[in-house]
Amino acid sequence: MRILLVGATGTLGRSVRDVLGERGHEIVTASRGGSDVSVDITDTESIRAMYGKVGEVDAVASAAGGVPWLPFGELSHQDVLDGVVGKVISQVELVRRGTAHVTGSFTLITGVLARDPVRTGTVASLANGAVEAFVRAAAIELPQRVNAVSPTVFTESVGAYGDLFAGFEPVPVRRAANAYVRSIEGHQTGQVYEIG
Amino acid sequence: MRILLVGATGTLGRSVRDVLGERGHEIVTASRGGSDVSVDITDTESIRAMYGKVGEVDAVASAAGGVPWLPFGELSHQDVLDGVVGKVISQVELVRRGTAHVTGSFTLITGVLARDPVRTGTVASLANGAVEAFVRAAAIELPQRVNAVSPTVFTESVGAYGDLFAGFEPVPVRRAANAYVRSIEGHQTGQVYEIG
Repeated sequence: MRILLVGATGTLGRSVRDVLGERGHEIVTASRGGSDVSVDITDTESIRAMYGKVGEVDAVASAAGGVPWLPFGELSHQDVLDGVVGKVISQVELVRRGTAHVTGSFTLITGVLARDPVRTGTVASLANGAVEAFVRAAAIELPQRVNAVSPTVFTESVGAYGDLFAGFEPVPVRRAANAYVRSIEGHQTGQVYEIG
Repeated sequence: MRILLVGATGTLGRSVRDVLGERGHEIVTASRGGSDVSVDITDTESIRAMYGKVGEVDAVASAAGGVPWLPFGELSHQDVLDGVVGKVISQVELVRRGTAHVTGSFTLITGVLARDPVRTGTVASLANGAVEAFVRAAAIELPQRVNAVSPTVFTESVGAYGDLFAGFEPVPVRRAANAYVRSIEGHQTGQVYEIG
């Protein structure tokens, strides 16, 4: 398949690229910089331009989306809005703008905080919960399939988060990448693949 | 208790007011118009002004939040943003702005579409999923308790929705109102009370 991978340069994105590549797929990478196509997913016009350059693909895999990490008492109104735009509206726009260019499936990224919160992760939790409910809803309206991958913390990222995920059992990022294969090559829709 | 009820004039809000009133609580009502205090919950400054007028309360009960209902293919970028501001950021701001004024608990409103989607309800689903995950996350950071009530369609509202909720078993709005009592008078936090 020809697959557009958005957020190709992060820990997860690199693993998704490796796993999909090993399975013989043609991968078109997109990210803010250093990929086949540049895109800022917080800007819906940038997403439109990306699809215009890339043309038709069988699948879109998103491993992109940023949110602020702050104690609840330090969050501003703008922080909450930034998180929603960064991880929710951005991925909704990947789907909304992509319906005319994608024949098979969309796979979005969410995460464990939707179900198991940690301190400073309020906006991440909110964003993940939104994406998971969106996937279930969009799946019953779209001709394309739509799923989400919802991993716990990665073994490869534990060091970067310090004690934030104390006691969480980390998983190798490759396990989350495999869930993208399952979403793209499988036939389910409206699913949230919880990894770990 | 002294309870601020936001969204006091809708089908649910009126029932919440009745049920809390019967239990002897003092209710301060807020809505766009026709209540003790006027508030536009999509405007964070209006929320700030509301708390300034109302002063300290034991609990906040929210029965407010609007989202666009449209087929996925007709949704604009602005529609998605409007829905997030209308039901998610609005209720987050009720909590964020309220922490200095509320001693006991916040009870927010979400709904069945977070788990069981219907066509034209993509933004409602997304918003509900966001609020439910937010409640779980905020509960582990805030000194106040935070819960959500997540009802299915109300017996009293079935006519207004036509066949949108075909086959859904409706519940009397009073059952959802009772969940506010459970949230406010009980001691749980981070809970989503699914009604129906």
